[in-house]
Amino acid sequence: MYAVIYPMEVNRWGLFEFSCKTEIKGNPFTDQFLEGTFTSTHEQKRVAGFYDGEGVFKVRFMPSFAQQYSFVIHFRDEEDSFCSSFKVLSAEMGNHGPVRVANTFHFAYEDGTPYLPIGTTCYVWELQNEVLQKQTLETLKESAFNKIRFCLLPKHYDYNLSEPRSYPYEGTPCDSSVLNSENFNQYTGCATGNDWDFSRFNVEHFQHIEKSILALQKQGIEADLIVMHPYDRWGFSSMTKKQDNLYWNYVLARFSAYRNVWWSLANEYDLMETKSISDWEQYAQLICELDPYGHLRSIHNCGSFYDYSRPWITHCSIQRQDPYKCAEYVDQWRAQFKKPIVLDEIGYEGNIQHGWGNLSGKELTRRFWEAACRGGYGGHGETFFRKDRILWWSHGGCLHGESPDRIKFLKKIMEETSSVGLRFHQMHWDELCCIPDTFSSQNKTIQDKYVFYYGFTRPSFRKYHIDDTTEFVVEVIDTWEMTIENRGTFSGDFTIELPAKEYMAVRLSIV
Amino acid sequence: MYAVIYPMEVNRWGLFEFSCKTEIKGNPFTDQFLEGTFTSTHEQKRVAGFYDGEGVFKVRFMPSFAQQYSFVIHFRDEEDSFCSSFKVLSAEMGNHGPVRVANTFHFAYEDGTPYLPIGTTCYVWELQNEVLQKQTLETLKESAFNKIRFCLLPKHYDYNLSEPRSYPYEGTPCDSSVLNSENFNQYTGCATGNDWDFSRFNVEHFQHIEKSILALQKQGIEADLIVMHPYDRWGFSSMTKKQDNLYWNYVLARFSAYRNVWWSLANEYDLMETKSISDWEQYAQLICELDPYGHLRSIHNCGSFYDYSRPWITHCSIQRQDPYKCAEYVDQWRAQFKKPIVLDEIGYEGNIQHGWGNLSGKELTRRFWEAACRGGYGGHGETFFRKDRILWWSHGGCLHGESPDRIKFLKKIMEETSSVGLRFHQMHWDELCCIPDTFSSQNKTIQDKYVFYYGFTRPSFRKYHIDDTTEFVVEVIDTWEMTIENRGTFSGDFTIELPAKEYMAVRLSIV
Repeated sequence: MYAVIYPMEVNRWGLFEFSCKTEIKGNPFTDQFLEGTFTSTHEQKRVAGFYDGEGVFKVRFMPSFAQQYSFVIHFRDEEDSFCSSFKVLSAEMGNHGPVRVANTFHFAYEDGTPYLPIGTTCYVWELQNEVLQKQTLETLKESAFNKIRFCLLPKHYDYNLSEPRSYPYEGTPCDSSVLNSENFNQYTGCATGNDWDFSRFNVEHFQHIEKSILALQKQGIEADLIVMHPYDRWGFSSMTKKQDNLYWNYVLARFSAYRNVWWSLANEYDLMETKSISDWEQYAQLICELDPYGHLRSIHNCGSFYDYSRPWITHCSIQRQDPYKCAEYVDQWRAQFKKPIVLDEIGYEGNIQHGWGNLSGKELTRRFWEAACRGGYGGHGETFFRKDRILWWSHGGCLHGESPDRIKFLKKIMEETSSVGLRFHQMHWDELCCIPDTFSSQNKTIQDKYVFYYGFTRPSFRKYHIDDTTEFVVEVIDTWEMTIENRGTFSGDFTIELPAKEYMAVRLSIV
Repeated sequence: MYAVIYPMEVNRWGLFEFSCKTEIKGNPFTDQFLEGTFTSTHEQKRVAGFYDGEGVFKVRFMPSFAQQYSFVIHFRDEEDSFCSSFKVLSAEMGNHGPVRVANTFHFAYEDGTPYLPIGTTCYVWELQNEVLQKQTLETLKESAFNKIRFCLLPKHYDYNLSEPRSYPYEGTPCDSSVLNSENFNQYTGCATGNDWDFSRFNVEHFQHIEKSILALQKQGIEADLIVMHPYDRWGFSSMTKKQDNLYWNYVLARFSAYRNVWWSLANEYDLMETKSISDWEQYAQLICELDPYGHLRSIHNCGSFYDYSRPWITHCSIQRQDPYKCAEYVDQWRAQFKKPIVLDEIGYEGNIQHGWGNLSGKELTRRFWEAACRGGYGGHGETFFRKDRILWWSHGGCLHGESPDRIKFLKKIMEETSSVGLRFHQMHWDELCCIPDTFSSQNKTIQDKYVFYYGFTRPSFRKYHIDDTTEFVVEVIDTWEMTIENRGTFSGDFTIELPAKEYMAVRLSIV
């Protein structure tokens, strides 16, 4: 072990990275295992290292406390080890730690700051050209999105048939221009002509993804990493069990120490014909063992839900199963799974041919409101086919839809209404009502705030009665025009005139 | 029996009415029972008569064949009888007989002419002033509606709290200006101050309803008579079993011979707290016994469906149970009940406070298309609160919404596409496809026509493949703008550009 590099100081929930050069013996990805043990007053964690190319091995660690840490690094089966220490400073401004489940159905950062997930999907934004990646980050900066789903492996699907900027393995891809149904099985992702060494990672591919994760982190955005997925022509979705395990070990060793990482075992796990439930359970076990920080874990469906009651699943990551109804089930799913309900796919605003990818901005916004009022979280996506052939859902770039501004407005309403999250409140059958979701509020007769959402119905007035005496400030919210109109203070029985338009809401706030 | 009046000729499916005066003995509604037996080569029917006031008893009969009929009229328990005969001419132009179930899921008139029900609801249009009734009939004339649901008994509900033009019984109503929760039970319809003789009908009330049924008949509109309903302050919804039976007998004797009558046992039967399932079954049995023409029979829910598999029910008369989804279940309900699916209430176009009564015209039209493409039938209604306080759903009058014209356009598309009706055809999960629903077509590989409906999705193009060789004329239908654009002839794999708008449809017609 020589040419050792590591920092003397790092911030709490920052990335401590130990690097060293050493003699390469055999295949450094499969034959050499670096490990580290990190100890402070409050914690001791053991983490796996990885080979990062050019003779360099690394061990990464995320400290959870602003304390003095000592550490020991050694190669398994070798006697030599390296010991030292470093100091962990308090978290810098804007760094609240990793996101955790809070109050059963919601999220907060580790320092207790509430986190309302407003997610979007750009499956392979990080595998596009530099200009486009930069544009994606700029777009995100202006948006409300604080979580993004994307894949670690390249994607082969409609509108995304070109080659990625890099591949995860050493080797060469098939010639996609000659693929046909005889030399390409789209259900397993296997095509003739791929030539990969599945025992040697292309470290540049992973280094680049880390840069992307960090760039998101700087913008306060959680990286919901999709580790496996079915949309493939390179054979990455149908590797052997041993190859998959090597991949999972490498991914976990490299990415776990980034505080803004979430694990999505797969996008549309149920389309991956070569994987069984026991495979997924085993990958989940690997995450639980090798990610010592307990990042959020879920798995995303195409058709059938994975069994979200599995204890390793921290939150539901749902794709709608019914083209007509999805967000409307959130309160039922909360009761069923007792976990946060994140609707990572509820249809996309756009104009492509697929039924999931051509919703209006109004309909997508409505679904976000339905989800929010029932105590869950919608997920954004956009699929406009335009001359530039750049679709946000796949490539990132710019947003063209009408929903992102309205989703930002909804986030503001949510934040104003509750510091924890919302929950469904049973009132009349023909209006959706939500209240702040704190455990203590469950027993309150009168809530601090009530938000009534009228969706696609168009009342010209509504009658309210919370109790006979409590005074409420009444605000009429146009969720599409993004206006909030204060109508004054009311109590007892009262009637509020409404504009007989779709997508209106009314908020009552105790005086 | 003296002063006998009856016609010498009547048209097939017309109304033969025998009238006579006789000595009144006791209460003519409960103590005297007139009956008739009508015989031709092809049929013999026995029908009950009724007392029509001023000493006049009547027996009505609808002949089903253009033949010579003989008949015998007599009072039960009396020896005297009156015998004579009359001639039945063929049906006049536009008279196709009563509507029957045809091909399991659809309807046709008795002469075989297809009948596509396009229903609307005006609960007590016939109990409004003369000017308003006339206006309702004028409005219907311009519309596509060929069925109207309305009540035989007055209605007490929001926007309809004034007194009706007449009452079904002799007596006097309560003073509605003094009603409160102590002297009025809104769940049973019982209020203090009503004074009715439930053994004596107000014949003028029924005569007027008959005029209304005939006026509809002249316009080719089926009268879907709601015999009982819960929205009451006069006590008509909570009469005794004996009083109910007298009412049912009277209604059946008076109205059965009108060819355009349908029986709806109740609106929202499940809100009538004083009636049990065995009551409804007994009323159904009365209809089956006393309506010798077999008019269509159903019963309409508020919450729970009645058991539509009951053999006396000819078709489902459904109110949507889920605010988000209803017409989308039609194909499932067809499979379940094996009867026509008529969605008599799927929400109303309007602006009132109630969630069922403030849909946009677009949403109501979308629901009609969903129902049609799945092989069922939507139902229209309109609830705009305006200065004149006249709401179509309750009073009739004028239509103000945007859906009626689009519903008329849909009817045209349905008629062009199939002479029998439509049925759902499984294609891709993300498009709704329907084909003509004839029994023979079930076995066809290639259908004569395919209609694809895209609802709230907005594809900018869709790909089609029916088979490799058959040529189809392709029409792009804008269901909202009511345009049909012929795009020419295609076969094999082909792509149709679409305007990325909501509410588009594509029709393929075999060349």
